[in-house]
Amino acid sequence: MVNSREHIYVNAESIKAFAIRAFMAVGVSQYDAEITTNSMLQAALRGEGDHGMRLVATWINKIKAGGTNPKTPISIIQNHTSTALIDANAGIGAVAAAKAMEMAIEKASSSGAAFVGVRNSNSYANAKYYPMMALESKMIGFTFSNSIPLIPPYGGLTPKSGTNPIAFVVPSKNELPVILDMSTATMAFERLRVYASLGKKVPPGAIISSTGHTIDDPTLLEKKGFLKGAVLQAAGGYKGFGLSLMINLMTGVLFDGAFMDDLREFTPADETEKVSFVLGAININHFMPYDRFIERMDEFILSIKDSDLASGVDQIYLPGEKGSIRYKARLKEGIPLDSPTIETLSAMAKELGIEGIPGKI
Amino acid sequence: MVNSREHIYVNAESIKAFAIRAFMAVGVSQYDAEITTNSMLQAALRGEGDHGMRLVATWINKIKAGGTNPKTPISIIQNHTSTALIDANAGIGAVAAAKAMEMAIEKASSSGAAFVGVRNSNSYANAKYYPMMALESKMIGFTFSNSIPLIPPYGGLTPKSGTNPIAFVVPSKNELPVILDMSTATMAFERLRVYASLGKKVPPGAIISSTGHTIDDPTLLEKKGFLKGAVLQAAGGYKGFGLSLMINLMTGVLFDGAFMDDLREFTPADETEKVSFVLGAININHFMPYDRFIERMDEFILSIKDSDLASGVDQIYLPGEKGSIRYKARLKEGIPLDSPTIETLSAMAKELGIEGIPGKI
Repeated sequence: MVNSREHIYVNAESIKAFAIRAFMAVGVSQYDAEITTNSMLQAALRGEGDHGMRLVATWINKIKAGGTNPKTPISIIQNHTSTALIDANAGIGAVAAAKAMEMAIEKASSSGAAFVGVRNSNSYANAKYYPMMALESKMIGFTFSNSIPLIPPYGGLTPKSGTNPIAFVVPSKNELPVILDMSTATMAFERLRVYASLGKKVPPGAIISSTGHTIDDPTLLEKKGFLKGAVLQAAGGYKGFGLSLMINLMTGVLFDGAFMDDLREFTPADETEKVSFVLGAININHFMPYDRFIERMDEFILSIKDSDLASGVDQIYLPGEKGSIRYKARLKEGIPLDSPTIETLSAMAKELGIEGIPGKI
Repeated sequence: MVNSREHIYVNAESIKAFAIRAFMAVGVSQYDAEITTNSMLQAALRGEGDHGMRLVATWINKIKAGGTNPKTPISIIQNHTSTALIDANAGIGAVAAAKAMEMAIEKASSSGAAFVGVRNSNSYANAKYYPMMALESKMIGFTFSNSIPLIPPYGGLTPKSGTNPIAFVVPSKNELPVILDMSTATMAFERLRVYASLGKKVPPGAIISSTGHTIDDPTLLEKKGFLKGAVLQAAGGYKGFGLSLMINLMTGVLFDGAFMDDLREFTPADETEKVSFVLGAININHFMPYDRFIERMDEFILSIKDSDLASGVDQIYLPGEKGSIRYKARLKEGIPLDSPTIETLSAMAKELGIEGIPGKI
């Protein structure tokens, strides 16, 4: 048994091949298994463990239990010049999101900007992955999603809105692209799970009990099923709640999908999460020449970095910059997997009867 | 001289006629004067004094000094199926924003969703007014704008991003529409000015000195020109800053307009603010039948309100709800004007040689 603080380093290609084998073993097509794996692998390479390789086992459990349809049999419900609505029919969130993003890029290439809504899906996890697909097409990409109620309204104590992620991706020239990927809670749900699994305390104010007191031990939430007797706090008080609310209205409510208490979580594995999300693209060339735009982006980024620093800060990082730096490093050094993840993935490999990662899992 | 805490109540129609006279006296067409007045009047009726009638004098000064072109001679720079870009050519922000919103609604009626960018404008002030125009067309409306740098990047002390307002407006059936209108700072700039004019202290954390200390006296900022030696804080720390940043990228940077230090404020009056903003519309019927959508909205709103309450809270209000309630009340009772506003408007009326508000100004 490895100590939970220890990590082994596995190279990205080995992990990728392993995850694809695993998804294909439960009925996912090779094409869809690659998309799904790539979205998790990117999070792992960028150092966002909460949306990284530990999700492979979670998602596969959900397929085996029936909560996720491994075929992701998408139906197109509405199709217009700059918008569309698709039903994921309980499929894999990553696959539905990638499909929606492709449609949005295609529509934006002629119309200027477009977004595609998805309903009745499972979570897409690594939000930034899909809008990053727009970079190749010289576009700005964005996304937001609803999720189970965990945040009370301003002045209330009952969870009514989700941590509802938002991501925006904007290209630049010589600087790194700006990649904002944030939840509207002070702390994202999956990050809380990571804290719980590592036995780490959370910063004050992130979790509040149903009587209004702060809680610093995320395992308390886990024991109670993450929903009983405690709520997360919105980032920035009523402003974060307001944004979280708008995401609800423009996803589940607008798409005739599930909202509020009809949404489900990763567990129980036999239930579909029924989340809704938006994938959008903005065609830069429909506003100004792309080449000039990315020069302006560099100028903007360098100006932001040229700021006086608060005490204890050594430099200003733009949104996504640290992750992009880590991504490059981990492509060389490998991805650190902690012991709970290794054990989970090893057990999964045995159960599926697939080859593990040679010498590692 | 009236005490600064005293107010006189003036009925909306009298104020409206007065403001239209004033704008027409400095060369604004009747049509444009009505739009401009209506946007300020709405803020005043909703109890948002910072974007209310006191702005009439500020905007008229800017026209007289040359910072605002009273003709708002818009040029259409780009025009596509679901996007367009217009140059306000230093015109009135309210007029350019209303024009952009009309274009966005027209485009969304066939394409599903659309947005129109505006550059080289003066501020539009009451952000929610323009997306509320979408309600009549059974659409969701949204807007965001850049503004002068007042917020430092996360970890920095130099102002690099603006308070950059965001507004979303979503219709409902029997409940009030949801109207989110927020700045990405903990406190909006114009609200700070109101605090300064009333001698009120601001809550801790809203203003930080260049050495990282909190400042509670907004008059200190005003004395120094609002920009020297102090910065505003983003709502929700790096999340609020991230959103504020994205608004910059998707307005001034994308529209080939001014950004960062090339932006200007209301003062000096002879300089154009050069702000950029987006006005967008989402056609609800392109996702689901409008009549069913507004029923779902009511269901959603009532569920939010059905929350356990934090201590000291008597009920949950949705974004915009308090303002909509106040709007109805003030249509009957009149709009309270404080003595600095009355004095400013009286002086303006004399200078312009126009009829005041009988018995009031």
